[in-house]
Amino acid sequence: MSDIIQPRVLKGFRDILPEAEIERADMMERLTDTFRSYGFVPIDTPVLEYAEILLGKAGGDTEKQVYRFKDNGGRDVAMRFDLTVPFARFMAEHLAELYLPFKRYHMAKVWRGENTQRGRYREFVQCDFDIVGSDSAAADFEILSIMRAAMCALGVSDTTIHMNNRAVFNRFLARLNLGEKSVEILRVVDKLAKLGADETRAQLAALAGDEAAGQLMDYIRSDESFDATLARITRLAGGPGADTERLQAIWAMAEACGIAGAIVLSPNITRGLDYYTGIVFETFLNELPEIGSVCSGGRYNDLASLYTKHKLPGVGASVGMDRLLAGIEAIGKSSKRGSYTQLIILNMDASLEPEYQAAAAVLRSAGIASELFLEQRKLGQQYAYAEKKGIPYALIRGAEESARGVWLLRDMAQRENSEHASVAALASALKAALNGRD
Amino acid sequence: MSDIIQPRVLKGFRDILPEAEIERADMMERLTDTFRSYGFVPIDTPVLEYAEILLGKAGGDTEKQVYRFKDNGGRDVAMRFDLTVPFARFMAEHLAELYLPFKRYHMAKVWRGENTQRGRYREFVQCDFDIVGSDSAAADFEILSIMRAAMCALGVSDTTIHMNNRAVFNRFLARLNLGEKSVEILRVVDKLAKLGADETRAQLAALAGDEAAGQLMDYIRSDESFDATLARITRLAGGPGADTERLQAIWAMAEACGIAGAIVLSPNITRGLDYYTGIVFETFLNELPEIGSVCSGGRYNDLASLYTKHKLPGVGASVGMDRLLAGIEAIGKSSKRGSYTQLIILNMDASLEPEYQAAAAVLRSAGIASELFLEQRKLGQQYAYAEKKGIPYALIRGAEESARGVWLLRDMAQRENSEHASVAALASALKAALNGRD
Repeated sequence: MSDIIQPRVLKGFRDILPEAEIERADMMERLTDTFRSYGFVPIDTPVLEYAEILLGKAGGDTEKQVYRFKDNGGRDVAMRFDLTVPFARFMAEHLAELYLPFKRYHMAKVWRGENTQRGRYREFVQCDFDIVGSDSAAADFEILSIMRAAMCALGVSDTTIHMNNRAVFNRFLARLNLGEKSVEILRVVDKLAKLGADETRAQLAALAGDEAAGQLMDYIRSDESFDATLARITRLAGGPGADTERLQAIWAMAEACGIAGAIVLSPNITRGLDYYTGIVFETFLNELPEIGSVCSGGRYNDLASLYTKHKLPGVGASVGMDRLLAGIEAIGKSSKRGSYTQLIILNMDASLEPEYQAAAAVLRSAGIASELFLEQRKLGQQYAYAEKKGIPYALIRGAEESARGVWLLRDMAQRENSEHASVAALASALKAALNGRD
Repeated sequence: MSDIIQPRVLKGFRDILPEAEIERADMMERLTDTFRSYGFVPIDTPVLEYAEILLGKAGGDTEKQVYRFKDNGGRDVAMRFDLTVPFARFMAEHLAELYLPFKRYHMAKVWRGENTQRGRYREFVQCDFDIVGSDSAAADFEILSIMRAAMCALGVSDTTIHMNNRAVFNRFLARLNLGEKSVEILRVVDKLAKLGADETRAQLAALAGDEAAGQLMDYIRSDESFDATLARITRLAGGPGADTERLQAIWAMAEACGIAGAIVLSPNITRGLDYYTGIVFETFLNELPEIGSVCSGGRYNDLASLYTKHKLPGVGASVGMDRLLAGIEAIGKSSKRGSYTQLIILNMDASLEPEYQAAAAVLRSAGIASELFLEQRKLGQQYAYAEKKGIPYALIRGAEESARGVWLLRDMAQRENSEHASVAALASALKAALNGRD
């Protein structure tokens, strides 16, 4: 006998057991349905790419975190650390085969050798959706609209999307002669919710002086209606421009679609990154804003400048799946289930197995997910199995029921049995009952 | 301006463009639906694992092909090369949290640095489904039944599943005093379809002598009914046993479920590998048997002996997705489409964009996947976009239709317009028409 190898996974990696994987699959399927309903198409790219391509734009932190190695052919390769860089490479490489605007979603794993002490995983699923090749307000609104629809599809409609346009802020900063410090200022402003007003003001004063800090604090308020906030930032930025008109156009579309009530114009939202150049979005659970944005994005000038001279403006967003799953659990909205099975056929008698299998086939044809318990075991063990998988119905036929030509259908929660002359007849009644439950 | 990095993927890797990715997603969703309807649950395991764990059992070829490297923490890690080894590790690690029999499906990417000259990819999706913790004929039949249901769900019901029990063959070989050469003999026998009868016989004669070769050739025939074949191999193997009774039990369940007509008892099927110990299965497209088995599997004694002392007998199978996609394409059964979009709203007038967005929202609520063309472009360009995405309907409202308070619905294939007073009214009619198309 060989020795046993201790089964274990790498630090920062995890197995997903059925209950959690079903929950994650539910989320991914609802998101997928939403993206498809808006005309988005799926693509796939390799997990491994040339390190030169993945890291072309990356700074120090990313480079340190990436899984990079020499493959058996001596190539310098890396595992993708996000879905944006591969998408940029993909667009540059396939532009001639595609069409614009190109709207894609991509849900897939990425890897970062992050410090696991912060509760981060080194392998996680990213969920991105982008519109490339359009600089229109309609495209910005479509991303916003999908963010809203996605939250509703996930059963968390009690959310607020904060929207801003960095271009207006940049005009305002230029007026204050703070254009050169815009990156630092945006970083501070972006943390308003975390730092609080006093600390934000102090940090701004240190960067830009006391007077400018006061004006900045006035600019980033968002305590009024959309119209009032827009009027104020328009004035502070020196008057209307394409950037304020864009905000107005997006707002008009939101009102026409009846979702304006879930959207707030928040001049303090900047998304920190240098990546975004125009509209930016963040989504917060109203019951749990402190966990941060669960779906964020924005507009960028040029997706793929590293790989092509074709200019590809775009707008997109990502769902933070792990954070959102944790948030949904924290507000008590997660509905965990052990399986998809709706009915179990108890295995009472080996000689009846062909009948049981035939019954399962009839039930599946009727759209009822059904399984036969596959072993001859005590009834208690079979019920325990059904309970672990959360199966709501059991079908029972032992020697006695077989002699009488009947099947017993057991409602597991009610602990009630009903008697039926045929599987086909009970299947249609049960299908209706199950549809009523959903 | 920085230099452009030439966009390209690694040899043996590939991007999947929308049309192909939709086809692949269709296949994965139909398979998923099938697995769920049988009570199978999903799990997930990490892409990266300790090399020691992944390679514990692996032989020379696997070890050469695996992507293995030292991570930033100096750990010896590897990317998974199949889903079986991680599943074995998973079962051993989580046995106390799970229940038996445990039925799981897993569709995910694996990596092998194979010789790409044979048209192989180094990154591909595997699709495995297994029942672990049961040694019953009911479990064997369930895998067989899923294989059949999966092919029907994929629209390729014209398939034959070949079944055999290696245990009967081993009894037969023992009677011929060829037990010690069973691995070599099984390898030759398994290639009967490829080698032809004469060459197979010659190779067997070289291994076992002329007389034994004749008896082996008699054993591996499969030109009669199930009953006749079973009777013959039972006789040649020395009489009935648990192994022949199991074949009989599986057959009885197949007959009860009405799928026996798609199953053949083929004593020559052995699946080459040492891994399988009992029942083995292979699936061939009747119109294209020469591409080989598109869904194969079998029973194994003990899944996770490397990682636990708990004995875990199981039975399972894999769908060969790339081969099956190619096969479906070759027999003209693939239905490619450019998107999921069912209706495009043409963008005739920027001032009407809020109305267009509201119309899209109404259509989506009615279950019609709808998108607004996001740019102000010439109608020809908008139609070209719709054609590339294969969108069957367009909704049109320019200044003239707006003044008249109507919408035009265009059937793109028929090039016919119909006039409608409201989007809500046309949505329900259109939904019915689209359901009729499916």
